[in-house]
Amino acid sequence: MPITLIANNYGKSRVRVLKVTHHHASHDIAELTVNVQFEGDFDAVHLSGDNSAVLPTDTMKNTVNVLAKAWSGEQIEDFATQLAQHFLANNSQVRAVRIEIAQTEWTRMAQHAFTRGSDERRTTRIAATRTAVEIESGVENLIVLKTAGSAFEGYKKDRYTTLKETTDRVFATAIKATWTYRNPQVAFGPCWQQARAAILKTFIERDSPSVQHTAYAMGEAVLKAVEDITGIRLSLPNKHCLLIDMAPFGLDNPNEIFVPTDEPHGLIEVSLQRR
Amino acid sequence: MPITLIANNYGKSRVRVLKVTHHHASHDIAELTVNVQFEGDFDAVHLSGDNSAVLPTDTMKNTVNVLAKAWSGEQIEDFATQLAQHFLANNSQVRAVRIEIAQTEWTRMAQHAFTRGSDERRTTRIAATRTAVEIESGVENLIVLKTAGSAFEGYKKDRYTTLKETTDRVFATAIKATWTYRNPQVAFGPCWQQARAAILKTFIERDSPSVQHTAYAMGEAVLKAVEDITGIRLSLPNKHCLLIDMAPFGLDNPNEIFVPTDEPHGLIEVSLQRR
Amino acid sequence: MPITLIANNYGKSRVRVLKVTHHHASHDIAELTVNVQFEGDFDAVHLSGDNSAVLPTDTMKNTVNVLAKAWSGEQIEDFATQLAQHFLANNSQVRAVRIEIAQTEWTRMAQHAFTRGSDERRTTRIAATRTAVEIESGVENLIVLKTAGSAFEGYKKDRYTTLKETTDRVFATAIKATWTYRNPQVAFGPCWQQARAAILKTFIERDSPSVQHTAYAMGEAVLKAVEDITGIRLSLPNKHCLLIDMAPFGLDNPNEIFVPTDEPHGLIEVSLQRR
Amino acid sequence: MPITLIANNYGKSRVRVLKVTHHHASHDIAELTVNVQFEGDFDAVHLSGDNSAVLPTDTMKNTVNVLAKAWSGEQIEDFATQLAQHFLANNSQVRAVRIEIAQTEWTRMAQHAFTRGSDERRTTRIAATRTAVEIESGVENLIVLKTAGSAFEGYKKDRYTTLKETTDRVFATAIKATWTYRNPQVAFGPCWQQARAAILKTFIERDSPSVQHTAYAMGEAVLKAVEDITGIRLSLPNKHCLLIDMAPFGLDNPNEIFVPTDEPHGLIEVSLQRR
Repeated sequence: MPITLIANNYGKSRVRVLKVTHHHASHDIAELTVNVQFEGDFDAVHLSGDNSAVLPTDTMKNTVNVLAKAWSGEQIEDFATQLAQHFLANNSQVRAVRIEIAQTEWTRMAQHAFTRGSDERRTTRIAATRTAVEIESGVENLIVLKTAGSAFEGYKKDRYTTLKETTDRVFATAIKATWTYRNPQVAFGPCWQQARAAILKTFIERDSPSVQHTAYAMGEAVLKAVEDITGIRLSLPNKHCLLIDMAPFGLDNPNEIFVPTDEPHGLIEVSLQRR
Repeated sequence: MPITLIANNYGKSRVRVLKVTHHHASHDIAELTVNVQFEGDFDAVHLSGDNSAVLPTDTMKNTVNVLAKAWSGEQIEDFATQLAQHFLANNSQVRAVRIEIAQTEWTRMAQHAFTRGSDERRTTRIAATRTAVEIESGVENLIVLKTAGSAFEGYKKDRYTTLKETTDRVFATAIKATWTYRNPQVAFGPCWQQARAAILKTFIERDSPSVQHTAYAMGEAVLKAVEDITGIRLSLPNKHCLLIDMAPFGLDNPNEIFVPTDEPHGLIEVSLQRR
Repeated sequence: MPITLIANNYGKSRVRVLKVTHHHASHDIAELTVNVQFEGDFDAVHLSGDNSAVLPTDTMKNTVNVLAKAWSGEQIEDFATQLAQHFLANNSQVRAVRIEIAQTEWTRMAQHAFTRGSDERRTTRIAATRTAVEIESGVENLIVLKTAGSAFEGYKKDRYTTLKETTDRVFATAIKATWTYRNPQVAFGPCWQQARAAILKTFIERDSPSVQHTAYAMGEAVLKAVEDITGIRLSLPNKHCLLIDMAPFGLDNPNEIFVPTDEPHGLIEVSLQRR
Repeated sequence: MPITLIANNYGKSRVRVLKVTHHHASHDIAELTVNVQFEGDFDAVHLSGDNSAVLPTDTMKNTVNVLAKAWSGEQIEDFATQLAQHFLANNSQVRAVRIEIAQTEWTRMAQHAFTRGSDERRTTRIAATRTAVEIESGVENLIVLKTAGSAFEGYKKDRYTTLKETTDRVFATAIKATWTYRNPQVAFGPCWQQARAAILKTFIERDSPSVQHTAYAMGEAVLKAVEDITGIRLSLPNKHCLLIDMAPFGLDNPNEIFVPTDEPHGLIEVSLQRR
């Protein structure tokens, strides 16, 4: 049986760039980490070692820097689109370009001074060919915790089940959400703010009978709040905070002292779509 | 437009387990990190908060521990299969189970003493339903470096290209490879060893005109060496070691002093299949 | 020459605890990571294997949990002191106890809901014997960046110097500061807030001719602002943001596009004391 | 009370360098991470912003690269000494230089090809003035585990003690050891090998009644094995592998299935000296 190259892609990952935009009285900053990936007709590279179709990944990095200069410094979706269009326009050997951008959070302290925010990232991913473009934006590592309004009971038990049912637990998670925009003309900034707000409002206000139920409710809230979003995927690790048993010390522990843990952790994922 | 739950899955991630197998004169150890994921009919959980179909992820963790006791301690593919079968047999609400296992490398020093090996991991991933099973095994973080036999020249240049062509560079990468076995009856241990050996032999012996060419050659070598592997995917970051320009100090630098870098890095991926 | 045990200490590290304080209408949370270390007369443990003087580190962990319940949930210096006193009172074999606590930042979103703040940590370290106690508090990983008011020129040059002088650069750092309180009766909360504010005000308002000068100015500002602090140590990595040379692309780059880097980095440290 | 600068130091951290040594038929490689720190008369820098005494940290990095070229590629202690001497000879404003080097482990696969070893690092630290030099070498992150010959019993119990005594447990640790050489003329390579071997031999062969006892025995073994080492410090985290209680599942667990944990962990430290 012959061996076939059925798929290939290449590019540059973790291209970091800091753009400073100079206004009259103050500066804005945007810190990004960018991934670039090409797909196309690269059989000769793989099979015969002919590199003539390969734009170096080092050039991809340079291009990120150069195009960052022309970019407004505002919506990462615009920058990703500009990169994708540039690469497609100048590389006929490339069939599809994928650009991923994650934006680091900085908070202004003064006109020219900033402090680093949380590890939450605003993200986007553009998958573009010469005839189509798909835009998926979202958040990752949005860490939240609530100390009331979360339960987990009535679940299936088998002979290996030792977990105790609870009507009141700590619920902590690091939300990753990615949603798809209806088209490339939507107002990226406001849509992103509204989607994020809908997720947080759901977390705060809705009682949680399970992480699954909360994840679905978050997705539903985003789709109801933002007409220009057509689908959403949420990934919620259950970062367990375990209630410490103080009976051996003759003490009760009415949801006061917990041990936060990193591993193992639950992982709950849902995808919702308008139909 | 109504909103639909189009996909969902849940499970436990990063379940760590150390199994010690007691022989007459010595012990064997296996340190694993296990992920479990269920798919199935869980609409009621998400929509109405009815948890009756939800086996807790804590129970999944307990099950990993209990079944680790019965497992031989040898092939991780066997353990993953046993877990998948257990969960399918006992959970009619579950349509598909996915088990991922990564094995940490320990080297024997004495009958009961071991030292930690490299960060390379042996991996497997079983995706099982009641009618089908898919087994994908591989390695990740297999870090290699060569100081001869690697070039990169003849590539496409545009106005943003500053990279210099080279007939002799350092080539460093952290290989991730996953391959598919023909069926669940193959000899997992020998196949894995042969596949890994074929990858390393290619890295060592074949001149590299590009990472792309080497990645393809590795895949081809595995498919030629192991009849029971039907397809393979390789992902090779190009962990650039940059030659330092010593001209400002009045010195030449004939491939002697490099700065190893983590970011940005190239990323080259290929998939090969028998046809 | 005989061999002597000249020093020894033991304890428990990375004890994580989440304390939830229940008020009438809302909850407060405190997430801590605690290290405990004992010094004392443990020669028999090391030399003859007699464990009778060893309080297990597991018991230290339990004690952290139990005492967290009685703690107010407010100043970490109080909790550290309570732990040190407990261990000294109950362990005559122990000469000195060292407690280190780092507090994770959470921001309130609602009465019972919180979102994770930055990776900045409020820290304290209590070193206590039966006759003396030393309290060192501070911050770590307080990441700041400014895009104006930072220069580096007029420095020493030798034959290996290639750095260009600049009157205007990006200055980014992750501040670690530890200061010593005059006595255990100071108002820990307000002192900490004032010290942190003095550091940030200096960063924002003072022009920086060097990281060294800024580090000293920060220390001086803290000592001037907080009478109850007697000395301070600052450790400032210079997280270089390198200006990208766009001349090869026919473009200038007037402090607009930078590449943030993690390594290598400068590291500047100062200690100031009232005399 | 006036404010005084009582200490200061500055330098470059995490300077990475890969040196390739070209022999007739093969290459050797050395991958290092280097820290450089200066102490001296830098009051003017801190107080008045006069940089004329400051050799830039960027120049330190360049110097590491240039001197790496002349270095033999063999003992990191030699390279550290050469760096310290260079900086002292050319910087009269500097009173003391501290050089720290950590060497990454690579294993030869072929004449020009290598695979990454474990995360163990060979380390050295040279503290040099114009009249004295101190050399401290060692290992860090030497991860070992044994499944027999380790107990922990007879320890002190108080009302918060829940740990069960055991005559047979898994003992896992990540050894960090630093030792001081008698003088700068010792044979660094053989001494390092012998010290490391003495540590491992002790771990393998000596029964462990406590981590403390093992730590002391390791130090004693090194001092007995290597005459040119005058003192040693060991730091041993107790990376607990917890025996899983299988009684709830109607099973016993005679030291077969454990859960390896990262936090919390014990931390045991000893210093030994010839007297």
